[in-house]
Amino acid sequence: MPNYQPDLDQVFHALADPTRRAIVERLTRGPASVSELAAPMAMSLAAVMQHLQVLEDSHLMRSEKRGRVRMCTMAPDVLARAEAWLGERRRFWSTQLDQLGDILGEDE
Amino acid sequence: MPNYQPDLDQVFHALADPTRRAIVERLTRGPASVSELAAPMAMSLAAVMQHLQVLEDSHLMRSEKRGRVRMCTMAPDVLARAEAWLGERRRFWSTQLDQLGDILGEDE
Repeated sequence: MPNYQPDLDQVFHALADPTRRAIVERLTRGPASVSELAAPMAMSLAAVMQHLQVLEDSHLMRSEKRGRVRMCTMAPDVLARAEAWLGERRRFWSTQLDQLGDILGEDE
Repeated sequence: MPNYQPDLDQVFHALADPTRRAIVERLTRGPASVSELAAPMAMSLAAVMQHLQVLEDSHLMRSEKRGRVRMCTMAPDVLARAEAWLGERRRFWSTQLDQLGDILGEDE
């Protein structure tokens, strides 16, 4: 029965951490350098870079070296895929509730 | 900067596993007993019950004992909250892209 979607494993794992969600929130407001992303975090640059690696592995963000600066950018299609999965589940559930309502209505 | 939402930590962690997503998919089609959920899974009942515990801890599902059977039901509000978080991020990002488009348009 399990429908293996390794992408979703990685995306949801990446989003299960408050620091990584904060980075995603920051990047949805526009690209940022690694040092800009690290500045407000109460942790070492190495720790921030580990979180960035998890985000990049999940394809939620891309990074590229521009001279001596590594710039990070959101890759929103993966976010949309996770949102679509959740939306589909919620719609399925709403349909079930509607059908249950119809059945209960018929019984009255 | 991190905006701590322990709920979202647990929800995204719960969804980061294909077996747990399969259980969520099954439950969005209606309530099911633990044995019904375990039947199609290639794993021990104990392993399935561990996954169910993670889902219940994240409040994605509820379970209750009815006689000798434990029935599981979706709790869709948490799913909706995770979907809302993703949707908000995606909308922010789209706004950024639109603004970038406007700026590039002005430059021409």
